Amino acid sequence: VSAVSVKPGAPSDWLTLNIGGRLFTTTRSTLVSKEPESMLAHMFRDKCVWGNRQDEHGAYLIDRSPEYFEPILNYLRHGQLIINEGVNIRGVLEEARFFGIEQLGDQLEAALKNTQPPDDHSPIS
Amino acid sequence: VSAVSVKPGAPSDWLTLNIGGRLFTTTRSTLVSKEPESMLAHMFRDKCVWGNRQDEHGAYLIDRSPEYFEPILNYLRHGQLIINEGVNIRGVLEEARFFGIEQLGDQLEAALKNTQPPDDHSPIS
Amino acid sequence: VSAVSVKPGAPSDWLTLNIGGRLFTTTRSTLVSKEPESMLAHMFRDKCVWGNRQDEHGAYLIDRSPEYFEPILNYLRHGQLIINEGVNIRGVLEEARFFGIEQLGDQLEAALKNTQPPDDHSPIS
Amino acid sequence: VSAVSVKPGAPSDWLTLNIGGRLFTTTRSTLVSKEPESMLAHMFRDKCVWGNRQDEHGAYLIDRSPEYFEPILNYLRHGQLIINEGVNIRGVLEEARFFGIEQLGDQLEAALKNTQPPDDHSPIS
Amino acid sequence: VSAVSVKPGAPSDWLTLNIGGRLFTTTRSTLVSKEPESMLAHMFRDKCVWGNRQDEHGAYLIDRSPEYFEPILNYLRHGQLIINEGVNIRGVLEEARFFGIEQLGDQLEAALKNTQPPDDHSPIS
Repeated sequence: VSAVSVKPGAPSDWLTLNIGGRLFTTTRSTLVSKEPESMLAHMFRDKCVWGNRQDEHGAYLIDRSPEYFEPILNYLRHGQLIINEGVNIRGVLEEARFFGIEQLGDQLEAALKNTQPPDDHSPIS
Repeated sequence: VSAVSVKPGAPSDWLTLNIGGRLFTTTRSTLVSKEPESMLAHMFRDKCVWGNRQDEHGAYLIDRSPEYFEPILNYLRHGQLIINEGVNIRGVLEEARFFGIEQLGDQLEAALKNTQPPDDHSPIS
Repeated sequence: VSAVSVKPGAPSDWLTLNIGGRLFTTTRSTLVSKEPESMLAHMFRDKCVWGNRQDEHGAYLIDRSPEYFEPILNYLRHGQLIINEGVNIRGVLEEARFFGIEQLGDQLEAALKNTQPPDDHSPIS
Repeated sequence: VSAVSVKPGAPSDWLTLNIGGRLFTTTRSTLVSKEPESMLAHMFRDKCVWGNRQDEHGAYLIDRSPEYFEPILNYLRHGQLIINEGVNIRGVLEEARFFGIEQLGDQLEAALKNTQPPDDHSPIS
Repeated sequence: VSAVSVKPGAPSDWLTLNIGGRLFTTTRSTLVSKEPESMLAHMFRDKCVWGNRQDEHGAYLIDRSPEYFEPILNYLRHGQLIINEGVNIRGVLEEARFFGIEQLGDQLEAALKNTQPPDDHSPIS
């Protein structure tokens, strides 16, 4: 998939993110509306303010993990936090913090506490 | 894979959906026939009514999760609900509700009840 | 990957399938030889008989699940049925039946009986 | 990713394999050095002897499973056999035998014996 | 996704790696800053010194496993080691050693000890 360049003749809110090399197509309003105070919302609220870099297809470049970003984008789409079995919650938490999505960070930390036994000191996974 | 633009010289029912950046190739009749009253069927029954946006390759843009849409498309193809281990049923349910596929939503809710213990209050997964 | 269009100057048996939007490159003899009476073999035995639709890169369009087709193609390549943990056997069975690969369908049903407890009435997974 | 065609001006050992539709970029020395007597090494030792077919981007066509080939390529890169949880060892064994990588086949058979209980007669997975 | 060639008119630190055929988009400072003494940092600190090969889209060719490289790149982005369930830690360790990221190698070896029972002599997984 190359980045979205919607057919001419109509105004469009669609854009494509290039997160660490993987493309996500979504709308500006998804990124901006659900958590208006997040850094992600600020990055995409005004087209020119943040000076986001674009690749040669027009997708906005963000140097982060695509896999852990996916549940965050779904959360912004419909307000539900849904994570597949086998996906490390700590990875999603790291991205939620980076993008400044506060409420989701709190949910993820609560979820982490539920899944980890109190005396688990393992450094990863 | 770029979007399908079937070779000229024959009428075609084939189309490509761009769901959140991933492409799904299917036929209009798959989207319309199995659940004719769903929102998804309404979106694709008449070519011009809903004004679906298309990307530059002609794929129809839908701002939703591709991963959880996949079992829904398979259900529309052959009528069976089949979900892989590790895929969160709640994610599929969220999409079934969004696309207005009622009967599938009921099946998914029944499946959720079977898999979750009655006193499980975990917020995710 | 775009569809295979082998370099000119040599006869070729190679072809690409576009299964629900994902491309599989294989040879005609793989599709035809192992199970010559299957619908899949009939679809590809004679180049023009079935009127298979092709996308603009020449890949043959089939409106089915790519994920569950994968072990079927491997079976046709080397005769072994090999399925990863976490992949729903019922999904593979659904495709084996669709493509009319009888012997594989029988193997899959036997495998299903081994994995499911006798009193399990869960509708999915 | 299209096949590698390295920038002009320097000799190159890089090549791309199209295994069942997925592209793997590696070097000829990786394919040839670690197991010089394997069929895979013979296929790529001499450029023109085996008449490997190439797709239109120059990637070498091999009609096998990409998923189970991946750990084999990693083994040829660094000599370690590493397989993810959930990936069927029998699938990797099938490919190791096909490509004639004897020592790896022995390792895989030993690993299979360790993971299967002695009275398990299940046909798959 | 083709390799990043950022739009003209501004200096850029963005680059794309082609690791075994999969593309990772990141910045030079991510590769260089976190572990300045690693081989990876040395490879990308000076543009021309190491003579890294590039594919025809300008992505830097590295003949290693893309799957096991992914958590390493995330570690360089934010300093956390996060690995999904099902991904073999030994695979990540192999890459950390190859790229000379010492501190991460130590963390991975500690994690391995925690997950393996002391009398486990299994050769893989």
